[in-house]
Amino acid sequence: MLKNLRNMAVVGTGLMGASLGLAAKRAFAQLRIWGADDKPQALEEALRIGAIDEAVPMGKVVEADLLCLAMPMRYLPKILEQLGPALNQGVLWMDVGSSKQNVLAQVKAFFGHVPARFVPCHPMAGNERTGALAARADLFAGSKLLLVPHEGLAAQARAEVTAFWQALGSQVLEMEAKEHDEVLAFTSHLPHLLAFALANALEGESQRLCAGMGPGFFSFMRLAKSEPSLWEDICMANKEALLGAMERYQSELCRLRAALEEEPKGQALLKLLGQAHQRRQAW
Amino acid sequence: MLKNLRNMAVVGTGLMGASLGLAAKRAFAQLRIWGADDKPQALEEALRIGAIDEAVPMGKVVEADLLCLAMPMRYLPKILEQLGPALNQGVLWMDVGSSKQNVLAQVKAFFGHVPARFVPCHPMAGNERTGALAARADLFAGSKLLLVPHEGLAAQARAEVTAFWQALGSQVLEMEAKEHDEVLAFTSHLPHLLAFALANALEGESQRLCAGMGPGFFSFMRLAKSEPSLWEDICMANKEALLGAMERYQSELCRLRAALEEEPKGQALLKLLGQAHQRRQAW
Repeated sequence: MLKNLRNMAVVGTGLMGASLGLAAKRAFAQLRIWGADDKPQALEEALRIGAIDEAVPMGKVVEADLLCLAMPMRYLPKILEQLGPALNQGVLWMDVGSSKQNVLAQVKAFFGHVPARFVPCHPMAGNERTGALAARADLFAGSKLLLVPHEGLAAQARAEVTAFWQALGSQVLEMEAKEHDEVLAFTSHLPHLLAFALANALEGESQRLCAGMGPGFFSFMRLAKSEPSLWEDICMANKEALLGAMERYQSELCRLRAALEEEPKGQALLKLLGQAHQRRQAW
Repeated sequence: MLKNLRNMAVVGTGLMGASLGLAAKRAFAQLRIWGADDKPQALEEALRIGAIDEAVPMGKVVEADLLCLAMPMRYLPKILEQLGPALNQGVLWMDVGSSKQNVLAQVKAFFGHVPARFVPCHPMAGNERTGALAARADLFAGSKLLLVPHEGLAAQARAEVTAFWQALGSQVLEMEAKEHDEVLAFTSHLPHLLAFALANALEGESQRLCAGMGPGFFSFMRLAKSEPSLWEDICMANKEALLGAMERYQSELCRLRAALEEEPKGQALLKLLGQAHQRRQAW
């Protein structure tokens, strides 16, 4: 089918949707990209940078050979309402949301089952910027793509979406939805919360602290540049797994603090830092 | 005096000492760099990359026009023993350690006062690498240098060291020792511990989690690549301020967790993330 991919629709032409458009056009020479977005400015920017060829009404996106939902996942219920049964009747579609159990549950609640040609995806790519103007054609090159199969997933849909991402330069890995959400709670959602928490811990101190901000601080704090409403959305969608990750993290912090407090000679602290460093180096 | 700077000695020819050598040679054409280090390999590497011109015995470093202590600060008592009274009799010297009250207390305990030509310094530069082979001549260019004056500091020593760092491209800011340690607890020591703690929270999960590690994760975790013994040293030296910072951070985490747990609609979480984001953007 990929050879016959004539057009692809993206719903949401922000950083992710516009990067998908640019990347897909580079990978498939004849491909036309349709964009749909509630915000006229988002569409205009995506058109201006050539990430989409055409702005289309929402109802038209289901006519594409491939449809990608790239808007914030809090709009999923609304989009399901708008697109309705067409998503259950042949169109090949995927999402690129950061949590998966929640998406699958909403889709299942809407249709009574998960459509066979819906392929939940999560590209391990992106950055703290937002909007089409931050889009990059190489955003997915060399990155991992987590594909989350479900019971009713059609083999052809799975194969086609896999081939699509591979053509964009991604390494496709499959992962169950529950596993995905647990893993991402630790590797993405928790680190974001930790960076946001540090910014809040510096409340009222900013001016005084500026002199002490070096490159390590800014590297650590990159995640706190991310869009709050997007991350509220992601965190709430993966609440259970994230709470588990936070609890585990908090007890690690307590161990470090106890080591710092209780051991005048730093042996316990050194042991904990040594373990952490070894683990980090292994990745 | 800077015009007459003929030679500079560095004690400790790791990343920091060797970068200082390279940077100083670039800034002062005629300057010769002497290096002293307990580890023959460290000296050899520093010689090989041209960061020092000559390896000298420890006793000789006090004969330099400018002496910089760039070894891990846990060796300070031993170095004070070795160099002794010469540090109190004319030589212009500085350290580049990450905490300052502790250094001043040790120096004062040794001499009964802080020598007039000792200038405590802390360059806001460096990275997670170690050793002379990671040294860079431009490590200090465009970075901040925190200079920590003390009661008995000679005006000339202060001016000379300021001019030295400015010649290396640093912006020199002055800060009291207590203030310095409180600030750095938040902007450097705490973030390091937070990254180390996350690595430990992933214990036994590494393989499973690898698929979910994206660019944001690695940016956040850069600090956990830092050398454990160096950071044990730094954290223990700034224990009191760091414990205060940890306590404040832990209560921020509790607030975030409560917002995630208690508010089904995410309003409280959004508010906290929004505050954090705004603060981050202001820097």
